[in-house]
Amino acid sequence: MPRYHLTIEYDGRPFVGWQRQDNGPSVQAALERAAAALDGAPRDVYGAGRTDSGVHALAQSAHVDLVKNLPEDTVRDALNHHLRPDPVAVLSVRRVDEGFHARFSAVKRGYVYRMIARRAPLALDAGLAWRVPRPLDAAAMHAAAQALVGTHDFTTFRDAQCQADSPVKSIDAITVREVGGEVRLTVEAISFLHRQVRSITGSLVEVGSGKWTPGDFADALKAADRTRCGPVAPPDGLYLAFVRYP
Amino acid sequence: MPRYHLTIEYDGRPFVGWQRQDNGPSVQAALERAAAALDGAPRDVYGAGRTDSGVHALAQSAHVDLVKNLPEDTVRDALNHHLRPDPVAVLSVRRVDEGFHARFSAVKRGYVYRMIARRAPLALDAGLAWRVPRPLDAAAMHAAAQALVGTHDFTTFRDAQCQADSPVKSIDAITVREVGGEVRLTVEAISFLHRQVRSITGSLVEVGSGKWTPGDFADALKAADRTRCGPVAPPDGLYLAFVRYP
Repeated sequence: MPRYHLTIEYDGRPFVGWQRQDNGPSVQAALERAAAALDGAPRDVYGAGRTDSGVHALAQSAHVDLVKNLPEDTVRDALNHHLRPDPVAVLSVRRVDEGFHARFSAVKRGYVYRMIARRAPLALDAGLAWRVPRPLDAAAMHAAAQALVGTHDFTTFRDAQCQADSPVKSIDAITVREVGGEVRLTVEAISFLHRQVRSITGSLVEVGSGKWTPGDFADALKAADRTRCGPVAPPDGLYLAFVRYP
Repeated sequence: MPRYHLTIEYDGRPFVGWQRQDNGPSVQAALERAAAALDGAPRDVYGAGRTDSGVHALAQSAHVDLVKNLPEDTVRDALNHHLRPDPVAVLSVRRVDEGFHARFSAVKRGYVYRMIARRAPLALDAGLAWRVPRPLDAAAMHAAAQALVGTHDFTTFRDAQCQADSPVKSIDAITVREVGGEVRLTVEAISFLHRQVRSITGSLVEVGSGKWTPGDFADALKAADRTRCGPVAPPDGLYLAFVRYP
């Protein structure tokens, strides 16, 4: 069966998350329904990573094996046809060999977190960014965030329910800067722990609003103690931005 | 009564447009309800300009007279409280003297139109941008658009139902460029005709997709003939971006 690599955009709001679950609609189930409608039988879709309920994707990555041997653009258009009206769009499809696995072949993942610092509610970006009702010092957040680069025990910044065997991970790059009136965090790593980006973002907002010094942030990381994490940022502002392969 | 100048963001999708109408919810009526709830009696809200159903605002401008004499930020927060859950947000409030009129004092208005050129549906920007399912040459659109700068008879680019006395208007500046994977049109003028920006945008997309030459576009303007307009762009991508005062 030919294997197809899918790049996918979605709005996470109506979903329980990426992963198929019994308690509500998931992005994976929507894609599997579309693949089944296209191929005439149930098909499994494998994602590069799970996203939580309400978390979005600019470019999630997944693969699916279909019996049908079709041009890439035909697969994309057919999947999009069957995905309607779910807010999930297959941006592109590439034929890959059977050695490719969306999750296990990935060598880098990137997330973006959007914050809008203002008193007024969000009319256009409700659910698509985190409104922080006080000024944020993006430069202080950026400076503090540099303590995360490299390999660390991220116990402070992972969910208590995280299933990963080890809390040790490497962050390759993290930036916080003002972009068009909002504060945007970008972070790159081979892989992430559960709620790692939202835990980091929530703690950096403590720095950005002057409640923590950059030193407090570095100390929280070193403590390797979940109780030292700041308030976890909501899913609204988080986007899986890219998945990279060799 | 103190006069307050409001700067307002809204998502145009659930509304029949800015203006109060009998056939559905309007942004103006939402603001008037909020002003009445704050001030204890009906209050009129005057906007700088009307937007059609589905058209958004990054920064619409309006004024309202209230009996209450309150700090600017208190008026902003109270209006936002009463506006919930409508996707309308008062970004800022300024006390102005009674000579100020949101519409008649305005000296410049700016619109932005967002286009995303791709085959896949929009998952994150559905209703917030116009998906054009073919490549767009932004440079060709920009070049063609320069024919609009200055004072012209805009009969070609105004709605047949437009109520303005004259089709002659001046455009101060118009640009089309690629920004972060999308094509963005920005246009500035003292004032606009009904559906003028959507008519211009739809016709420029004919240029951007190679159906019209820039010369065809200039000829359509010169013809001063509504039947020479290209397909009118949908409201989805249009944002009232700013209103400027002396």
